[in-house]
Amino acid sequence: MTCENVTQMERQLRERIAQIRPADEDAAAAARRHSDRLTKPPGSLGKLEELAARLAGMTGKLWPDISRRAVLIMAADHGVCEEGVSAFPPEVTPQMVLNFLEGGAAVNVLARQAGADVFCVDVGVNADLSHPRLIDRKVRRGTADMAAGPAMEREEALRAVLAGMELVAGLSEEGYGIFVTGEMGIGNTTASAAIVSVLTGMPPERAAGSGTGIDEERRKHKAAVIGRAIERNKPDASDPIDVLAKVGGLEIAALTGAILGAASCRRPVVVDGYISSAAALAAVRLAPAAADYMIASHLSREQGHGPLLEAIGLSPMTHLDMRLGEGTGAVLSLHLVDASLRLMQEMATFESAGVSRG
Amino acid sequence: MTCENVTQMERQLRERIAQIRPADEDAAAAARRHSDRLTKPPGSLGKLEELAARLAGMTGKLWPDISRRAVLIMAADHGVCEEGVSAFPPEVTPQMVLNFLEGGAAVNVLARQAGADVFCVDVGVNADLSHPRLIDRKVRRGTADMAAGPAMEREEALRAVLAGMELVAGLSEEGYGIFVTGEMGIGNTTASAAIVSVLTGMPPERAAGSGTGIDEERRKHKAAVIGRAIERNKPDASDPIDVLAKVGGLEIAALTGAILGAASCRRPVVVDGYISSAAALAAVRLAPAAADYMIASHLSREQGHGPLLEAIGLSPMTHLDMRLGEGTGAVLSLHLVDASLRLMQEMATFESAGVSRG
Repeated sequence: MTCENVTQMERQLRERIAQIRPADEDAAAAARRHSDRLTKPPGSLGKLEELAARLAGMTGKLWPDISRRAVLIMAADHGVCEEGVSAFPPEVTPQMVLNFLEGGAAVNVLARQAGADVFCVDVGVNADLSHPRLIDRKVRRGTADMAAGPAMEREEALRAVLAGMELVAGLSEEGYGIFVTGEMGIGNTTASAAIVSVLTGMPPERAAGSGTGIDEERRKHKAAVIGRAIERNKPDASDPIDVLAKVGGLEIAALTGAILGAASCRRPVVVDGYISSAAALAAVRLAPAAADYMIASHLSREQGHGPLLEAIGLSPMTHLDMRLGEGTGAVLSLHLVDASLRLMQEMATFESAGVSRG
Repeated sequence: MTCENVTQMERQLRERIAQIRPADEDAAAAARRHSDRLTKPPGSLGKLEELAARLAGMTGKLWPDISRRAVLIMAADHGVCEEGVSAFPPEVTPQMVLNFLEGGAAVNVLARQAGADVFCVDVGVNADLSHPRLIDRKVRRGTADMAAGPAMEREEALRAVLAGMELVAGLSEEGYGIFVTGEMGIGNTTASAAIVSVLTGMPPERAAGSGTGIDEERRKHKAAVIGRAIERNKPDASDPIDVLAKVGGLEIAALTGAILGAASCRRPVVVDGYISSAAALAAVRLAPAAADYMIASHLSREQGHGPLLEAIGLSPMTHLDMRLGEGTGAVLSLHLVDASLRLMQEMATFESAGVSRG
């Protein structure tokens, strides 16, 4: 890749970001006025009521059509696995990608329940994959070990971001009304914790959780590896692409792009757990208005997830102690998004039902 | 009513309680073994995984049939409204009952989304109601003002408990596989807070929340009214029926019965917010094993709800800041119950998908 290509990609990214507008406050206010006419004490539906108003603000429509919904599973491998940070061996990444494509993983079951379509994208799996339903956007076969040097080149991070962005833009044009973030990549809570640590200043010791289930000794080792990677690569916290490249991951960069893409198309995006939230944080740092299009889903068991969501300004709806990723917590929340819209559309008003106001 | 009737009702209650068995630990263990073969790190589905095991324990079946689901809305009025404890006038109780029966309330919308049937029961509404779908189990027209004397007679509380119990037993026989608690009764967070205060020792100041939306001054007044009611009636904390009678409510007593009925029929019961949880606490104090059949749904905005759920030993799945009641938070959670079972039934195993274990 030449410098010219990088310049071109940086421009594409800037152009897309420039399309992201803050939510439409008039539409949100109209939704709130409608909500206050419904037979319930004002605000008593809590986050569901607020969500309905936010959806109106995102889309500019009181009752947006979210009947077509896409779960995006970005998959990639991580060189940092060489440092022994994960409970599972790296070959699980391609194995699980095939499981997603065959419909046998948890996220597939929950997507079927939610009536959502699953799109599985190879952004950087360290294996040769071939499947009719696989979307091939492979940038490279896994990242390098960030404890020894940068995880990838800036140009590679940009390619991954743009891949996510353009995929979502295309699906929006096809009629998808809402997006759900998901991922697969053994080692990716390590990269996520590194991103979170750099972008929020949270110490690695706090940002590093137990992932899919490592013990406390291994978790401390993981935090130390993250500390070394940051020390060695010195990512620039004011430049999220630099952070994604030096201590991030290809699937995380692709998710950052997907979220920016959704915001630029005025489509809501439901953010899953720690990895997806790290990608969302990078997106917000690139384009603050992107936060208006994010819906937090669940609070995962990963210890840094609560503070991370707070840093973005999001509040999760479910507390299920999940720590699986894939998009599982987010796809479960589509039900709550549907509920918020159905309540707006179907509830009686005080007038129509003859109910006295307080 | 004669003493003989009371004795007979006490015996009926004792007989039903004697039928409540602790959950089947072998069935739960079998479900956990199956769950550990599925393509995910063990325990990574958090509360959903635990819920699937608990459902097996409750029903004795790995995959219980919960396709028919009943939302029970128990409705009654409260004499304590005379003390000015609520944001809404008492006439809203019968108005909302008609709204439930016509399908226009929030709980109706969410029940339709969940494929659940709504049963609206008049246990003590202070109005003459007539509707083809209303289930008439009226014990009396509202309670008396508990700040001036007992809310009702022991016999009346027993009648309400037995009404809920027998209703659920009948629906279980008809094939309903899971129950959702709901209620309507202006003033019923005051009665619930009084029950919680007596049964847990929590001071009224902490047990009394802002209900459907009273201000802080009125909330303090509500706490003082509860304190006076407890002082005046001296309910016996070791006798939950005495507590329900003296400072409770007819719909709360009916919910206590419904929960005991579900447990006696080995059916799961999804517990809604503060009022339903107060009823669940009374049920647990009458029959500790009933807790095995309870599924906590949401954490409401009512300040005492978190400690109350802890006192029962339950952990809520959603945090939606709701404070509407009706069963709304619980019926939303049916989706999560369905998800827990679908995951068990549809996910691939490590063996079938060729995925390496950690």
